[in-house]
Amino acid sequence: MAVLIVGSVALDTVITPFGKNEEALGGAATYFSCAASYFDTPRMVAVVGDDFPREHIQTFRHFNIDMEGLEVRKGKTFRWSGKYGYDLNERDTLSTHLNVFEHFHPKLPGSYRESEFVFLGNIHPSLQLEVLDQIESPKFVACDTMNLWIENEREALSELIGKVDSIVLNDSEARELAREPNLAKAARKIQDMGCPKVVIKKGEHGCLFFSPHSHFSAPAYPLDSVNDPTGAGDSFAGGFMGYLSQSGKLDELNIRRAIIYGSVMASFTVEEFGIDRLLSLSDEEISVRFREFREITLFD
Amino acid sequence: MAVLIVGSVALDTVITPFGKNEEALGGAATYFSCAASYFDTPRMVAVVGDDFPREHIQTFRHFNIDMEGLEVRKGKTFRWSGKYGYDLNERDTLSTHLNVFEHFHPKLPGSYRESEFVFLGNIHPSLQLEVLDQIESPKFVACDTMNLWIENEREALSELIGKVDSIVLNDSEARELAREPNLAKAARKIQDMGCPKVVIKKGEHGCLFFSPHSHFSAPAYPLDSVNDPTGAGDSFAGGFMGYLSQSGKLDELNIRRAIIYGSVMASFTVEEFGIDRLLSLSDEEISVRFREFREITLFD
Repeated sequence: MAVLIVGSVALDTVITPFGKNEEALGGAATYFSCAASYFDTPRMVAVVGDDFPREHIQTFRHFNIDMEGLEVRKGKTFRWSGKYGYDLNERDTLSTHLNVFEHFHPKLPGSYRESEFVFLGNIHPSLQLEVLDQIESPKFVACDTMNLWIENEREALSELIGKVDSIVLNDSEARELAREPNLAKAARKIQDMGCPKVVIKKGEHGCLFFSPHSHFSAPAYPLDSVNDPTGAGDSFAGGFMGYLSQSGKLDELNIRRAIIYGSVMASFTVEEFGIDRLLSLSDEEISVRFREFREITLFD
Repeated sequence: MAVLIVGSVALDTVITPFGKNEEALGGAATYFSCAASYFDTPRMVAVVGDDFPREHIQTFRHFNIDMEGLEVRKGKTFRWSGKYGYDLNERDTLSTHLNVFEHFHPKLPGSYRESEFVFLGNIHPSLQLEVLDQIESPKFVACDTMNLWIENEREALSELIGKVDSIVLNDSEARELAREPNLAKAARKIQDMGCPKVVIKKGEHGCLFFSPHSHFSAPAYPLDSVNDPTGAGDSFAGGFMGYLSQSGKLDELNIRRAIIYGSVMASFTVEEFGIDRLLSLSDEEISVRFREFREITLFD
């Protein structure tokens, strides 16, 4: 099996109180794929410019990422720059140059159309819909979104939400999308929009999962040192979708496991800058941290 | 057995977007005792004025609270008034009239001196120390505190922290006390002050428990309707200490259970105004909610 991701590949410049990472490999599809690769083969649908460094292609190869859907266009690669203060939950965007990503119009290679597990990363909801239309018979589709689309593209976004199995978003996005401050109620409103499985990420407070008949609360890993929060959410989605795709099962308990694997991958990503920690990670470390998540929540 | 609490009894006027509660029975010792009473007999060390309504004494009797340590002084009862907006995590204090509480100088009745489980509610740390000195051989002492003492009475507070087994405080207080934004590191700094068991309450995000060799993350109950957050923290402490006192065991698993019982009691308290929900509560409802806490965190 394989898990399809459509999203951004970018060159990120990130400043945190602990250092600076310049023109580093980033973007949602990058973090997602690197994290998912520990579970299943990621099929990456994205676009880069002809300035995209060859070494990054090597890196993708190292992660066993299927790049048939990675388009290289004439022009510059998407660049983003941001700065975090000591409160790593807050960040300022310093610059965004969409470059070739501005006119990204994802077209799936033929072999991708039979993908069963699909993650529609944060792009315009009408593009997410176009991608979904190209998938023959998906088994599980999840999407991400952002405040920009919630505020300006509510119609297309609502149509999309009615067509996916799951949405993965952060707490402030959930509140804004549902126009409801209480997260339990917000989740139910989003379910009423036609999306039965709602995953709400709360950063250092872990995450919540709402399905029609149950609720799951996953803790955050008590990290001593967070060096760079960039990519935490996308690594979460990669671990979550990668594990589901690998196991192929969608029962409640398996989805809970997938959420913990997502949390595990996010907790590793933020330990170092960019994808550095994902590069050095081992399967054994993932298993150990999964067990630690169980230990920190255990009671009877 | 019995569990001793020293703290405030007050008449609270609380305004939330969902209603107003005027001159209602409140204060840390009240919420603590009402919650703890579902597990063990609370011994209440507090002071009220001679204007304290007789019906509230009846209410305490209804909860089987031992009132030998409740002093009635000439003067007015402590009054507090506060207002919550739609973000129920934020509140504005409208007025504080300490009245007889201003010169509260807790003296324990002889029978209280052999208490084994002791909770030093949020009063001046030098008074907390005085109370502690009056206890013959406590088995488990926990304390609360607040930003006022952290900022202005650090010396007395540090002495206290070195003498208790546990401190129960909220996340912003933990960060301020430890002068450390990372909660895992903050907990360790507080442990280094001489208090081995640190409980950090995070409101709607649940709570964290740090002992020297383990970490526990407890979820919050996904409440649809919170009508009045007043007393949540004190109800948590009451359930936590009441369960520990009832069971008498202090091993890791039992403390985790106690934290969940604390969370259960807090989740009930905020459902209605003041102590109304604690008044109508049944043991069966507590057991059911405890099991729900287990269900929402279960994975393997």
